[in-house]
Amino acid sequence: MICMGIDSAGRRAGVALMRDEELLYEASLNAGLTHSETLLELADAAFRATGLGPEQVELYGVCAGPGSFTGLRIGLALVKGLAFPHHTPCAGVSTLEALALCHPVAGTLVSALDARRGEVYWAAFEGPEGRRLCPDAAQKAEAAAEFCKVCKKPLFFVGDGALLCYNKIGPEEGAFLLPAALRGSRAVGVCLAARRMQAEGKALPPELLVPEYLRLSQAERERQEKLRAGEG
Amino acid sequence: MICMGIDSAGRRAGVALMRDEELLYEASLNAGLTHSETLLELADAAFRATGLGPEQVELYGVCAGPGSFTGLRIGLALVKGLAFPHHTPCAGVSTLEALALCHPVAGTLVSALDARRGEVYWAAFEGPEGRRLCPDAAQKAEAAAEFCKVCKKPLFFVGDGALLCYNKIGPEEGAFLLPAALRGSRAVGVCLAARRMQAEGKALPPELLVPEYLRLSQAERERQEKLRAGEG
Repeated sequence: MICMGIDSAGRRAGVALMRDEELLYEASLNAGLTHSETLLELADAAFRATGLGPEQVELYGVCAGPGSFTGLRIGLALVKGLAFPHHTPCAGVSTLEALALCHPVAGTLVSALDARRGEVYWAAFEGPEGRRLCPDAAQKAEAAAEFCKVCKKPLFFVGDGALLCYNKIGPEEGAFLLPAALRGSRAVGVCLAARRMQAEGKALPPELLVPEYLRLSQAERERQEKLRAGEG
Repeated sequence: MICMGIDSAGRRAGVALMRDEELLYEASLNAGLTHSETLLELADAAFRATGLGPEQVELYGVCAGPGSFTGLRIGLALVKGLAFPHHTPCAGVSTLEALALCHPVAGTLVSALDARRGEVYWAAFEGPEGRRLCPDAAQKAEAAAEFCKVCKKPLFFVGDGALLCYNKIGPEEGAFLLPAALRGSRAVGVCLAARRMQAEGKALPPELLVPEYLRLSQAERERQEKLRAGEG
């Protein structure tokens, strides 16, 4: 089974192609360009390098959230476009779960993304198979840190919110921050999460893919604040 | 500091670009093509995607061995060619160490490559910082398994010889085999190993790069066997 995974939830853009259990191709780019400039080019490079085409892909995975609102929409739109002509099933995966599945550990893994305003999007996973311990949440970094104090060790932090969480728990025996170059997302994790969703019967036709924002966008937040102020 | 890492020691070809601690770009390909067809194209794609060129690279890392004899020579030749015009320092890194540094773990990590004839190229590393526990060796998989029985747990196996070693130790508490898609090499590990070598004063001018085969090539082995038979 050929699976393509696409990640544009954060600043890093990533594309991976798997055939059954094997990783055929993977590329990631974090060089200050926007996803609208780079994502299709990365997907095209993946197809050219492997000699495959969209007609051979049997499952698309894409980060549905949490993450950058615009980034998520670009990734979802691209996957819908690639999948629509052949009615290819799609899995809109949790960005945090995709991040966890490419970092298998023996103890606990905390996936954390910087959500600004002192908050992180976070979730925790256990064991090399990445068993989920809690749902994705948007909370203060302290909330993730509280959880970490009682979780099974060793404990690893990944994602661009890793440092925020790690700094809150202080020097703790058995808590590790991966090197910056290894802390980021990998599109192979999106493939692995998509395969898991398909096995659970959660893959969808492309037109049913929707983002999972967890929080309101800044524009919507400001609009609601204005409405509330108007009511007062 | 811009560092480019190139891996062609096994069937997977990989290229990565780091700026200081950050991973700018990484790509890997394992789709049945030869390194002579793909490696320069991968390096070119890395430069185009990041807007960088060989004149900006300040350190090249390349797998010097162990690995496929032809693969190693292609990688070394390419890096020599890229580095020579600007006299860029080069680090010929251990393939096993590069593999370890992109898989940080809390316990022990065994990097193992299938060396054919029932043997593996292997080495062991400890802790998230990848402290080396033993030198690279070409031995029967049983030798690696003996070491694993007494090493610190949890124990993870990576590389295309991981399954060979794992199968020898039997079901053991605390021993894990990563999913096949995550078990392979990553060129970011080559960058991390090259930076470590440079910090230890072990980077070289490109013309001094040499492969580290660990074993004689098949052609040399057969020649020596013939010579010995002639002597008898």
